[in-house]
Amino acid sequence: MKKIMNAPEAYTDDMLKGIYMAHPEEVKYVNDDLRCYCTAKKKDGKVAIITGGGTGHLPLFLGYVGEGLLDGCGVGGVFQSPSAEQIYNVSKEVEAGAGILYLYGNYTGDIMNFDMAAELCEMDDIETRSIVGADDVNSNANPDTRRGVAGIFFMYKCAGAKAAQMGSLDEVLAAAQKAKDNTRTVGFALTPCIIPEVGHPNFTLAENEMAMGMGIHGEPGVWNGPILTADELAKESLDTLLGDMPVAKDEEICVLINGLGATSIEELYILSGSVRSILDEKGIKVYRTFVGEYATSMEMAGASISICKVDDEMKQWIDMPVKTPFYTQV
Amino acid sequence: MKKIMNAPEAYTDDMLKGIYMAHPEEVKYVNDDLRCYCTAKKKDGKVAIITGGGTGHLPLFLGYVGEGLLDGCGVGGVFQSPSAEQIYNVSKEVEAGAGILYLYGNYTGDIMNFDMAAELCEMDDIETRSIVGADDVNSNANPDTRRGVAGIFFMYKCAGAKAAQMGSLDEVLAAAQKAKDNTRTVGFALTPCIIPEVGHPNFTLAENEMAMGMGIHGEPGVWNGPILTADELAKESLDTLLGDMPVAKDEEICVLINGLGATSIEELYILSGSVRSILDEKGIKVYRTFVGEYATSMEMAGASISICKVDDEMKQWIDMPVKTPFYTQV
Repeated sequence: MKKIMNAPEAYTDDMLKGIYMAHPEEVKYVNDDLRCYCTAKKKDGKVAIITGGGTGHLPLFLGYVGEGLLDGCGVGGVFQSPSAEQIYNVSKEVEAGAGILYLYGNYTGDIMNFDMAAELCEMDDIETRSIVGADDVNSNANPDTRRGVAGIFFMYKCAGAKAAQMGSLDEVLAAAQKAKDNTRTVGFALTPCIIPEVGHPNFTLAENEMAMGMGIHGEPGVWNGPILTADELAKESLDTLLGDMPVAKDEEICVLINGLGATSIEELYILSGSVRSILDEKGIKVYRTFVGEYATSMEMAGASISICKVDDEMKQWIDMPVKTPFYTQV
Repeated sequence: MKKIMNAPEAYTDDMLKGIYMAHPEEVKYVNDDLRCYCTAKKKDGKVAIITGGGTGHLPLFLGYVGEGLLDGCGVGGVFQSPSAEQIYNVSKEVEAGAGILYLYGNYTGDIMNFDMAAELCEMDDIETRSIVGADDVNSNANPDTRRGVAGIFFMYKCAGAKAAQMGSLDEVLAAAQKAKDNTRTVGFALTPCIIPEVGHPNFTLAENEMAMGMGIHGEPGVWNGPILTADELAKESLDTLLGDMPVAKDEEICVLINGLGATSIEELYILSGSVRSILDEKGIKVYRTFVGEYATSMEMAGASISICKVDDEMKQWIDMPVKTPFYTQV
């Protein structure tokens, strides 16, 4: 295992210490618990948005806490859910008088703990709503049981914008729901990654083998086979995406080409070009293209392609400036 | 070789096509040559800054072309220099009446081609100055023959800021020189990377072996041995950096923790925390910490640590907002 760290069991907390030391003006923790990650720039009267999930996906999840995006994050160990108590402690800190939206990925442990945190909040008369990202088309035929992956970025962006505009809790939820309804993702892995405390990959891919549809924790995909070219990957991915959510000629989408960790930025742009060429042929308009690492699996090689169908309202949300220690857009 | 691409020989140009398709309002190419990479937002009367170098280091080099930073970039093949003609064509496009600063890394091929481009410019009465980044302490005892690596970010930032403030060509050169004089880098690799057209790593590192001081093209370092912990890596690196450029108690520095490609953002923050703890112990003040991928070697695992000693003038330059398709700071 080739990782820069001090000890496998210290991975998450050492990472958090490094983040707080680097960005003390922007983020802080509460309850003497490094894993209760909160904005240091709370804004009175604004709906608070809280996310959470396991470590190992930076900039997901905590990297989106900051101006114009989220207000807090419960941080779990590598690929583990934060506890209900941690989410509740973050909630008490960032709640600013307008209620809280819980916005996170569709994973069993996370759902259980966010739901318990919501019950604890209710006892304190803090109003909460919940919505989960479930954009990974290949993870299930049923949209309700799909996993949440990189497409949650568009939910963060739209909900964060509506909250920054001082929308009500129900309006912020509706913005997240609108982004969810219009976002789909397909991902593929070329290599596994290693959980520090495990010390070896939890699956293997042969030389020249890839896994189409693999999840960001290594959940099995729809096929394993020889590595496709960028053009082939773009075509198969768009066939899947547009098969699940049709986009008509002249409709507009945003595209997110996300690297899973070890894949170079060069390759992401090669893939982005392949995707764009097909969209151009189909007459689907691209409003904005995002390329980079938005949701990773540590040192996994691979990428995901997300599309988000946008109207004028969503374009305005997506264009709003944001600033976190991990992601700045102007 | 596990890469997302269409063909090894198309790697650089497919990448460039993807970039131009994704960011048409920000960058363009001239002379029908994808590798003549120019800002689409030329500003009259401003000193133009041009960089260049091989593909495979994104966001270095072209990723720093944009508002508040650079104006153009000659793009070479993977780990190869751009041609003199390409640099000259970029020069003719972005020159805006105040001359050009060539600011690039200290590599033989690049120096030859930038010098030839400067001669071509001279025949057109375009004034140029040149400066090379040479921040990699472990690459040579003699500062003049050191390689340029991630620390060039601070030269870009300071020169870019001075140019945006409409400084003269000599003032922009002086800003780059000031950043150069105050910046040092130490890097280490945990894995090699693969040049697409070669198809296999050009060196090997055993399981649990790392290379301290290795260059971003795999140039040999000062030692190979078992992987150190983050705390040990931070200590040895800072000993080297501060041995070469002493920083007194209460002096201020910026720190750049740079990932070489495959190393996770989590690990970079673990390393950042280790570096910061040592600096705090020494009483060296950290003005600003940058963590992420600033200069990579495709899918190489590893990191570099740069320090840049800052005074009030440099802090103002480093804090100035910039915006490129790859790097935004507000």
